[in-house]
Amino acid sequence: MVEQLEKYIRERVVISEAELVQVVRSFRLKETAKGEILLNKGEVCKHAYFVNRGCIRMFYLQQDGSEATRFFAFDNQFGTALSSLITQQPSFEFIQSVESSQLLSISKEEIQRLRKEIPAWNNLYISILEMAAVINTMRLESFITMDAKQRYEALLKQNPQIVQRISNKIVAQYLGITQESLSRLKGK
Amino acid sequence: MVEQLEKYIRERVVISEAELVQVVRSFRLKETAKGEILLNKGEVCKHAYFVNRGCIRMFYLQQDGSEATRFFAFDNQFGTALSSLITQQPSFEFIQSVESSQLLSISKEEIQRLRKEIPAWNNLYISILEMAAVINTMRLESFITMDAKQRYEALLKQNPQIVQRISNKIVAQYLGITQESLSRLKGK
Repeated sequence: MVEQLEKYIRERVVISEAELVQVVRSFRLKETAKGEILLNKGEVCKHAYFVNRGCIRMFYLQQDGSEATRFFAFDNQFGTALSSLITQQPSFEFIQSVESSQLLSISKEEIQRLRKEIPAWNNLYISILEMAAVINTMRLESFITMDAKQRYEALLKQNPQIVQRISNKIVAQYLGITQESLSRLKGK
Repeated sequence: MVEQLEKYIRERVVISEAELVQVVRSFRLKETAKGEILLNKGEVCKHAYFVNRGCIRMFYLQQDGSEATRFFAFDNQFGTALSSLITQQPSFEFIQSVESSQLLSISKEEIQRLRKEIPAWNNLYISILEMAAVINTMRLESFITMDAKQRYEALLKQNPQIVQRISNKIVAQYLGITQESLSRLKGK
């Protein structure tokens, strides 16, 4: 159950077997249904999730009722409402299980406790924050500098899973375009 | 010269005097002229900057020749092309000194060396990455969920310095609106 998580950690930091056991013991198995909401807007985010199998997304509800996804986490990725998890302020975004998923969850308290006890975990936390910084900057870049077609092409190159596994409606909202535009782009 | 930096560090992490001396010794003074480019698109970012006095900005050059700012760092803030500094890949963004500024620069090598030698620096690095995650997420949120008026109002609340110190042209590009729209919003 924790093999993928152990592999993820070993690939990123130098860690002893004893420390690795201590780290993975801090995670809890969580099975989710398709569409299940793990965090509502306005709630404080208390957990980060490692995806064993499936997909979760972090999304905003817009004033017109549509939903815009900030980030998808697929198999062997971490996902959470990072801003709220860091600040412990109410979240602006929702967390939703897009597919029926098997997750491993770790609480904010455990994250912080492990940071004090295990330097390798602290370094893993840094590597996850660095990745988040790079990914968020790429997303910002795409909104600031690209048009719809360029955003779609960049997505196909950087993260084809999103186009392959996620419904057209959600992908269109992720790109900030209409479903009709997305269908046209896919057709080309 | 390093008093502000020392204060910044002491306010964020627990650090001994000896370690603090070692940290600040790794920074170099850099005086910049108004408009000076510190990093061009396509170059690998090798430095992070602490602003003693003045302002730097990270911006993208768009295909129509306009510039869109991702982030401003004012007095007592860090700024850099974070993504390129992390990945050591060519930067998509420029770094520019908006005003004539006094900066303290630290190299990627020194950042990494200090991370190994001084746990307090590692924790400061984490706190800066966390802040970047929160700020970048807020920026993304504003592009995904807000219209021009709401973005301007959020900016006034969160970071009035930008409206007060930066030219209308650059602020409008930061918000992704025309200068005319910005003037209208300011008038209200």
